[in-house]
Amino acid sequence: MTDTLIKVDLNQAATDNEQVHNRWHPDIPMACWVNPGDDFILETYDWTGGAIKNDDDASDVRDVDLSTVHYLSGPVGVKGAQPGDLLIVELLDIGAKQDMLWGFNGFFSKNNGGGFLTDHFPSAQKSIWDFEGMFTKSRHIPGVRFAGLIHPGLIGCLPDHKMLADWNKREQALIDTNPTRVPPLANPPFASTAHMGKMRGEARDLAAATGARTVPPREHGGNCDIKDLSRGSKIFFPVYVDGAGLSVGDLHFSQGDGEITFCGAIEMAGWVHMKVELIKGGMAKYGIKNPIFKPSPIVPTYNNYLIFEGISVDDDGKQHYLDVNLAYKQACLNAINYLTKFGYSPAQGYSLLGSAPVQGHISGVVDIPNACATLWLPTDIFEFDINPSASGPTKFLDGSIDLPIAYDK
Amino acid sequence: MTDTLIKVDLNQAATDNEQVHNRWHPDIPMACWVNPGDDFILETYDWTGGAIKNDDDASDVRDVDLSTVHYLSGPVGVKGAQPGDLLIVELLDIGAKQDMLWGFNGFFSKNNGGGFLTDHFPSAQKSIWDFEGMFTKSRHIPGVRFAGLIHPGLIGCLPDHKMLADWNKREQALIDTNPTRVPPLANPPFASTAHMGKMRGEARDLAAATGARTVPPREHGGNCDIKDLSRGSKIFFPVYVDGAGLSVGDLHFSQGDGEITFCGAIEMAGWVHMKVELIKGGMAKYGIKNPIFKPSPIVPTYNNYLIFEGISVDDDGKQHYLDVNLAYKQACLNAINYLTKFGYSPAQGYSLLGSAPVQGHISGVVDIPNACATLWLPTDIFEFDINPSASGPTKFLDGSIDLPIAYDK
Amino acid sequence: MTDTLIKVDLNQAATDNEQVHNRWHPDIPMACWVNPGDDFILETYDWTGGAIKNDDDASDVRDVDLSTVHYLSGPVGVKGAQPGDLLIVELLDIGAKQDMLWGFNGFFSKNNGGGFLTDHFPSAQKSIWDFEGMFTKSRHIPGVRFAGLIHPGLIGCLPDHKMLADWNKREQALIDTNPTRVPPLANPPFASTAHMGKMRGEARDLAAATGARTVPPREHGGNCDIKDLSRGSKIFFPVYVDGAGLSVGDLHFSQGDGEITFCGAIEMAGWVHMKVELIKGGMAKYGIKNPIFKPSPIVPTYNNYLIFEGISVDDDGKQHYLDVNLAYKQACLNAINYLTKFGYSPAQGYSLLGSAPVQGHISGVVDIPNACATLWLPTDIFEFDINPSASGPTKFLDGSIDLPIAYDK
Amino acid sequence: MTDTLIKVDLNQAATDNEQVHNRWHPDIPMACWVNPGDDFILETYDWTGGAIKNDDDASDVRDVDLSTVHYLSGPVGVKGAQPGDLLIVELLDIGAKQDMLWGFNGFFSKNNGGGFLTDHFPSAQKSIWDFEGMFTKSRHIPGVRFAGLIHPGLIGCLPDHKMLADWNKREQALIDTNPTRVPPLANPPFASTAHMGKMRGEARDLAAATGARTVPPREHGGNCDIKDLSRGSKIFFPVYVDGAGLSVGDLHFSQGDGEITFCGAIEMAGWVHMKVELIKGGMAKYGIKNPIFKPSPIVPTYNNYLIFEGISVDDDGKQHYLDVNLAYKQACLNAINYLTKFGYSPAQGYSLLGSAPVQGHISGVVDIPNACATLWLPTDIFEFDINPSASGPTKFLDGSIDLPIAYDK
Repeated sequence: MTDTLIKVDLNQAATDNEQVHNRWHPDIPMACWVNPGDDFILETYDWTGGAIKNDDDASDVRDVDLSTVHYLSGPVGVKGAQPGDLLIVELLDIGAKQDMLWGFNGFFSKNNGGGFLTDHFPSAQKSIWDFEGMFTKSRHIPGVRFAGLIHPGLIGCLPDHKMLADWNKREQALIDTNPTRVPPLANPPFASTAHMGKMRGEARDLAAATGARTVPPREHGGNCDIKDLSRGSKIFFPVYVDGAGLSVGDLHFSQGDGEITFCGAIEMAGWVHMKVELIKGGMAKYGIKNPIFKPSPIVPTYNNYLIFEGISVDDDGKQHYLDVNLAYKQACLNAINYLTKFGYSPAQGYSLLGSAPVQGHISGVVDIPNACATLWLPTDIFEFDINPSASGPTKFLDGSIDLPIAYDK
Repeated sequence: MTDTLIKVDLNQAATDNEQVHNRWHPDIPMACWVNPGDDFILETYDWTGGAIKNDDDASDVRDVDLSTVHYLSGPVGVKGAQPGDLLIVELLDIGAKQDMLWGFNGFFSKNNGGGFLTDHFPSAQKSIWDFEGMFTKSRHIPGVRFAGLIHPGLIGCLPDHKMLADWNKREQALIDTNPTRVPPLANPPFASTAHMGKMRGEARDLAAATGARTVPPREHGGNCDIKDLSRGSKIFFPVYVDGAGLSVGDLHFSQGDGEITFCGAIEMAGWVHMKVELIKGGMAKYGIKNPIFKPSPIVPTYNNYLIFEGISVDDDGKQHYLDVNLAYKQACLNAINYLTKFGYSPAQGYSLLGSAPVQGHISGVVDIPNACATLWLPTDIFEFDINPSASGPTKFLDGSIDLPIAYDK
Repeated sequence: MTDTLIKVDLNQAATDNEQVHNRWHPDIPMACWVNPGDDFILETYDWTGGAIKNDDDASDVRDVDLSTVHYLSGPVGVKGAQPGDLLIVELLDIGAKQDMLWGFNGFFSKNNGGGFLTDHFPSAQKSIWDFEGMFTKSRHIPGVRFAGLIHPGLIGCLPDHKMLADWNKREQALIDTNPTRVPPLANPPFASTAHMGKMRGEARDLAAATGARTVPPREHGGNCDIKDLSRGSKIFFPVYVDGAGLSVGDLHFSQGDGEITFCGAIEMAGWVHMKVELIKGGMAKYGIKNPIFKPSPIVPTYNNYLIFEGISVDDDGKQHYLDVNLAYKQACLNAINYLTKFGYSPAQGYSLLGSAPVQGHISGVVDIPNACATLWLPTDIFEFDINPSASGPTKFLDGSIDLPIAYDK
Repeated sequence: MTDTLIKVDLNQAATDNEQVHNRWHPDIPMACWVNPGDDFILETYDWTGGAIKNDDDASDVRDVDLSTVHYLSGPVGVKGAQPGDLLIVELLDIGAKQDMLWGFNGFFSKNNGGGFLTDHFPSAQKSIWDFEGMFTKSRHIPGVRFAGLIHPGLIGCLPDHKMLADWNKREQALIDTNPTRVPPLANPPFASTAHMGKMRGEARDLAAATGARTVPPREHGGNCDIKDLSRGSKIFFPVYVDGAGLSVGDLHFSQGDGEITFCGAIEMAGWVHMKVELIKGGMAKYGIKNPIFKPSPIVPTYNNYLIFEGISVDDDGKQHYLDVNLAYKQACLNAINYLTKFGYSPAQGYSLLGSAPVQGHISGVVDIPNACATLWLPTDIFEFDINPSASGPTKFLDGSIDLPIAYDK
């Protein structure tokens, strides 16, 4: 039986677990050590550490304290790992905690986090997803059911001091361009809610003062939210500190490309069974700056898609220059609008795009001035036919069910 | 035998072919008419109308007159089509012209068009790709060979006058923000090289003065450069004018997501066998603004990928806010750098990313301040193993072959 | 432009074409020669040489002279090929003749050929399939349309004298166990309808007297009718004679595993673009007796299946021992019966299983006394939903259309 | 948390578990009851109930008492199920027991069970496979590692008395044709080792005397050993008795089509999470005799294959008539012989074909007198390149490792 090196108790506060942390800092002590070639299991909280409940009230999403996320399990020290190595991590399997066979998706209030389409969906909403073995469905979004492409939203190794300083410097410089923006452009270190693993006292306070927030993906990987970095995939991580310091969390039962709803994918607590190995000096040998990975040989075969296009012209008809974000926004809005013709509310459509295995492709990025992005909606996840036809569309849903909403107080 | 409604002679100038045009304008007369339910064949020039040659000299790429593109076959009138309808176009098959069984990929000079990585590749270069049935390979990029996912880079219906006016207005507004930029932010109408199909005299001059350039994708589809809109796919186009006015061109033997090299994919002359049908009033029924489509049931099964990540921090270490373009640029640069470890030149790597069936995914777009984009490189297209390993990498190429380059005069 | 080394004129009798033959014999002269590394095109007749017409009368199927088939294009001599080599044949592309954009499927009369389910379908019937680019549909079987997985039913190299003698001897020994059986157990050489390519006079008569019939697959490959040996695949053929002598014919637009209808798949005239190379001494190096091959990277993605099981108990309830043929027969009959619930006639169901890309798997072959075979019916090829449900099934067809039938005279 | 309705303790004899049985008989009492719509978990023994050990000695395979298999968990009663209904079983998930993260594959002695290639491999041998999350590898077969396509080898509902009588009658009739054959043609009821669940005393003895053996697949499904009936698939079972009586066992971590090694696939103890529903009167509505099923949307994407052909001519050169079993045997032997060129022993090759996700297709079954079967070997499961090339093959293995063998005493 494989050793579970980090356990989490969902009835215990994440901040009480010394093998958990919510900031990136090179001084966080290793939570445990392994050898290259070892395989082991790490349990994880959901990214909020249990802040979102399985109920029909979105006020928890509205009120969440985003300075507390993400609760990561680790860091795991790998013996012999040195700066410049590549740490190979194979995700042998991933699953949900048996006492939490559900997950959540939601949109933050525009005043507390926002999201990709926050201008269209400014209030906190959520949907709850039940897991049925490999499958999931939501009581808040009837008519869809699909297999999960389970993956960690967040995984990576500790930065060294130099890299950490760079992160803080460049992100603060961005914040300084518009420091009062809501939502903010970036999040600076924030000591009071920092959970630094085993660190205590002055050392903890010192590290907490500069510990990088976990929200953005960075050179080390981190919160990449790549849906295809799923169980069965093999990742090659840059190593910056002795022992590497691998941490993981923010597990997703399923996610659409972009994780556009921000809160988030289908978020869950769970466990990761992984195996580690080293390529000594691999960063230079392979010219690696960011992680690279090989996707899993086991993936859902939802190959029937309806594909929506978007271009970089905004809702007001203003032309932007090769802006893929805007093009993808338009593709998402086009898909959401389409889904309403079958009876979904816009919020249900938005939630679905964040939760289901939709693909977001950068389709054209040179044809000035318009970028073209495509959103691939798998049609086999629906229990009815959502393809266009001469006789359609049919409203399969009567509108009696919608996502809970919690307006700002 | 299916009727070929538009023929092109590669030995004749595209501008001499009255069933070809290179601007969008509602007044361009239909080149031919069909009925809903008909299938027919249209031949097309390559997008430049033959400006790029099958040789080892990139000066043709450097000197190309971009005001002349794209040479489109059409418009095809569909009887009974009215504004507000959806025109269903099924791409029954697509192929190369038998007298041009090769294609080209290239990078424009930064001073004449540029491209996605023009700051890294400022000079004109090109690669020539030979077709072997379903497969292609290039004498300029050894060690790769792959099946084509053949598609039209450009396809769509004529805009109406209102839409055309909107396009010209919003694009000019963008140009006005930096009218001397090189490369330009957008291209305004340009009458002298406009080819308006059958139009002649004053009518032609009037339309040419406002005819929209064909480079950007727009609401009607147009130059979307979506590699998955391939033979076998079915597209639902908005109709704006009586008869729809469907035009097609810019055929690609293969392309990577983003068509990052701009000049372009693997560009070819060829033919499209298509079938049209109508959904009356379909735009309102389905809430369609941009085209939607169903991809082909026949696609290459290159399922082994090496995936590169990129984040929105630029080469100078400056932090940008959720900028997917930049993140994809970084992912591309990471992939190019990786390929150099196996012996490819950076230019070969760049060309490969524009030509091979690589995927570009919008992986994370909410984790402030960093967007995360991923570039999926199919490893089965290489004749040797490009996966990372403890013993690698091996330089399979000796550097004796590279892409022709033509420096600015 | 690639050279077409063998041309066929569908208005000319196949027996008048000297680059065509319908028997296997080492003395048939090469129709043309190529070098290793060459690519070239061979045109082919349909397997019957035009005996079956595009009409609604199955008497041509009933009356066909099976001693005349299959009309093969070749043999192609490959310079330097010697016995013991492996001949690599890459199928670069395959297509239909432009003047015959349709194909046929049929069942022979039990008294003239029979078929897999001849006891259930003893009379000649046929269906005609029209090609629409990559797709096909039949006026005789409404409600289905699918992309072709185009392949040669028959391809292989000439046997040497020793191998030919072995074939004739072992097949005659089988015939001798029941020489009057209808349909026969095997077909011996039959000189009068033998077409030996360029051979004339006494030499022709001598070879015709022992030339092996082309119906069965044998060690050299031959009439394997493997649907996955499709365009884009790469085959490694044993070489038995100097020059190899590669012949090809019996092109199929599509076929189900087993080609159960015998007459046949969706049979067509067409062309094959192929490339040849050699592995010297490859038979011994790789221990090759029968051909091996790598399937194409381009295949239809019809991944939604309804799978039918069959076991080796016959219609009378008699138990047979691990008989996969019988198990597959039962699986086929189960599928046909199921399809009748949606309105198809049994004959339409049978024809569909022979024509569409159904899979036939040898699922269990050790669980005495029952073999288990499975038939995989792709559900995406139907224009309506044929999955079982609590509310179904629905008769989508009214029975007004069926396959033409021609009873024995 | 989902209820586990049947638990098995691997340290307890299977015969001591009243919710387990090893014969089919309508009188076996339901082990537990569920409602339509319920999902629940059943744990299972490996098919032998623990007879095969994780060691390097094949004497346990040689000496196994085959009259004791298969140990099935159930029968599960489904409230409201009646004869003529279809029982829908969705396999929500399947996994190995945490205290047995390994499986076994083996060949029986020809004198005790035999197997598909028992004439070539007459002695008992075995290989042990370790599970690493979704993946498996064997210390007895170096150089391969693959993801499991986990499935139950055996699943189905209780027969009624009439069906049971038919089974026994027809199988005895077969046995009677050669009652002393080794291995036997079929296995008749055998009371002494029958485990009839909760049944005791006279009732048990009576039922045991006629309880059908579990080895063959039959009309109800049963031991179909269909590798694609994997987790995520949905099966429609005929119901013969009130309550249906669903039983499951013989879990496989992975298997090749045919389960040619008989002992067996990669056999494991584990658990099945399933959900049941009913289609009232479904057997008649859909014309169902044997189960039908829809495969899982989650499958391994091992799409690169090397395909071996076999025809129905035996090792002595004797011609058989359209015998798919023989053709598949030849294809298997061809593949095994090929693998020896890379350093595998024949026994390793044989074991691999039984264990890995190889496909066995009935490719041609009408081309008298030869059937053609194909064996599809996925090449991505190997850690080295096993494709043919002009420079190969390379012996990657030195022959120092082989499967344990136990000769008959």
